[in-house]
Amino acid sequence: MKTSNSKNISAFEAISKAQYLACAPILFQTVYTLRKHNILSLLDKAKDGLSLEELCSKSDLNCYALEVLLEMAESGEIVKIDSEKRYSLTKIGYFLENDNMTRINFDFTKHVCYRAFDRLDESLTQHKPCGLSEFNKNWETIYPHLSELPDETKKAWFGWDHLYSQTSFIPAIEKIAELFNPKVVYDVGGNTGKFAIECCRHLKDTKVTILDLPSQIKMAQENIDNNGMTDRVDFMAVDMLSKPELRGDADIWWMSQFLDCFAPEHIHNILSSIRKVIKDGAHVCILEPIADRQKFDAAKLSINAGSLYFSAIANGYSRFFTTAMLTELIEDAGFKVDSIEDNLGISNSMFICTKRD
Amino acid sequence: MKTSNSKNISAFEAISKAQYLACAPILFQTVYTLRKHNILSLLDKAKDGLSLEELCSKSDLNCYALEVLLEMAESGEIVKIDSEKRYSLTKIGYFLENDNMTRINFDFTKHVCYRAFDRLDESLTQHKPCGLSEFNKNWETIYPHLSELPDETKKAWFGWDHLYSQTSFIPAIEKIAELFNPKVVYDVGGNTGKFAIECCRHLKDTKVTILDLPSQIKMAQENIDNNGMTDRVDFMAVDMLSKPELRGDADIWWMSQFLDCFAPEHIHNILSSIRKVIKDGAHVCILEPIADRQKFDAAKLSINAGSLYFSAIANGYSRFFTTAMLTELIEDAGFKVDSIEDNLGISNSMFICTKRD
Repeated sequence: MKTSNSKNISAFEAISKAQYLACAPILFQTVYTLRKHNILSLLDKAKDGLSLEELCSKSDLNCYALEVLLEMAESGEIVKIDSEKRYSLTKIGYFLENDNMTRINFDFTKHVCYRAFDRLDESLTQHKPCGLSEFNKNWETIYPHLSELPDETKKAWFGWDHLYSQTSFIPAIEKIAELFNPKVVYDVGGNTGKFAIECCRHLKDTKVTILDLPSQIKMAQENIDNNGMTDRVDFMAVDMLSKPELRGDADIWWMSQFLDCFAPEHIHNILSSIRKVIKDGAHVCILEPIADRQKFDAAKLSINAGSLYFSAIANGYSRFFTTAMLTELIEDAGFKVDSIEDNLGISNSMFICTKRD
Repeated sequence: MKTSNSKNISAFEAISKAQYLACAPILFQTVYTLRKHNILSLLDKAKDGLSLEELCSKSDLNCYALEVLLEMAESGEIVKIDSEKRYSLTKIGYFLENDNMTRINFDFTKHVCYRAFDRLDESLTQHKPCGLSEFNKNWETIYPHLSELPDETKKAWFGWDHLYSQTSFIPAIEKIAELFNPKVVYDVGGNTGKFAIECCRHLKDTKVTILDLPSQIKMAQENIDNNGMTDRVDFMAVDMLSKPELRGDADIWWMSQFLDCFAPEHIHNILSSIRKVIKDGAHVCILEPIADRQKFDAAKLSINAGSLYFSAIANGYSRFFTTAMLTELIEDAGFKVDSIEDNLGISNSMFICTKRD
């Protein structure tokens, strides 16, 4: 979906794409069903393709089901059929079956987003994550309830969350070590302690303090203890939205996919609290997937879809940023962006900031 | 989505398309929301595009909502943004806003299919239209409950149903008049009487008999009376599945999007009942959208999606046909296909059949 090409497509191609989109949720569920019953996997392994009868004999789906699914998948260019009526995967089908990122995004859409997005309009009109009521009518945001989600939904949510953050932690830490060799790192919104653990592994002389809500600290503390890093990691139970009094001893203030959970006024409060105490020469490092810094249009598409996940499901008001938006938020709180490190793991960029005078 | 091109796309294009599909339900709901709040319409009318601020002032959506929606729509090539940050429609956006068939298919997917298709897998595994329980847990098929559907769903269902049938009736009747000039037409599964009314209008000397379930006949009779055609149309309350004894006086036995509501064994019974009584020289005319007789791949895609609507929502077992499938069903019941008239209205073909000896 190269945007740069879109101006040049013919009216015929454009109407075909419009009609494809009108049927796309149906094609999406078709592909999900074929994957779930291992049909894409069977086709991927069959060098000479498989006939409908062969697929029937290897599957728990009956011939009627397989036939309607495969015909739709053929129209959607997921499978192809040769002159002897043998089915095989197209290249698109191959990536749906085998590409890790595509599968993680696909499962996130299926198990976390699909039903909830039928309430996107309601969410944006009421400024509330109305889609979340698909899981529980009483939940106001998703964050305190992650562990209560249905199993498949939980697995898909954490798969998606970890894909972006965990692939970026090590390259980000290596960059921080190279540039700053910090002694004290504050991990703001440290969550389960994943970043703190990687930090301790890679920076042997560094101490980390995890700042998070009291309810989060307990889980993080367990993880840190289980990883034998008790003497390397401190904890500060704090609500960053309440304009807390902080200590200023950190060399690095680290935030990974943290600010994207908040509205602009919240972000202003969080950064301002840090601005008040940050010592000279210290840096704020903000890791985020930034829509306009992606090499590939498909990556930009899934980041923009992620923004709408915040709208419809997570909290109703936050979003992923563009470069200009995040820069403005940083500057408004009394910082400046010294540099931006792109392509850290999957889709992430690190904004390295210092205080403005 | 030309199937013929799919073999030649690069791995990069294929993975982009796979990732696009993984986000497609999110893009679908984005476009729906933009349409519902008239944003696509505003952009369509603005020659020089509109800025975010201008759209905000003209819309009931706030800037946050508009921004996340428009960014997703830009990634999905529905809108584009120029160097002065003014949004306008792409060609794809233009057709989503203005093409009647695309909108009818889109609204059918949104209001009839979207939630129900989250149960496609369940429907195909249990051989029941499990998606229908999104509307009412006690319904076994959709047909007796069309009038009880929520208003938007009902409107979308009838819009979709009528799009295909009504555009085809007049060209089909003209073809029948030219070929056979029939005196007596049997309208099998005559439903609301729409075909019978067109038939009376265009064939001045023809009498029509509507055959349908007793519950349907009443509504059809009212429509016929209201159109002043009481003396031209007869009614026969009959369940075609119960191997009924029929009269054989028809010159034409007409079935429009009727057989696609049944399983193969039902279709065999229906056609066999007709075969028993049909007089020499009479014709069976079967109007159906046939997937492999479409000029355009997008039309084939939406017909294949329609088959899955039968699986997930309508009854759990029927489907639209391919040429080979329908031909085999016709021949198995003791008929032969004399000719096939394609391109009647939107997507429909008429199979003209006579009895085999």
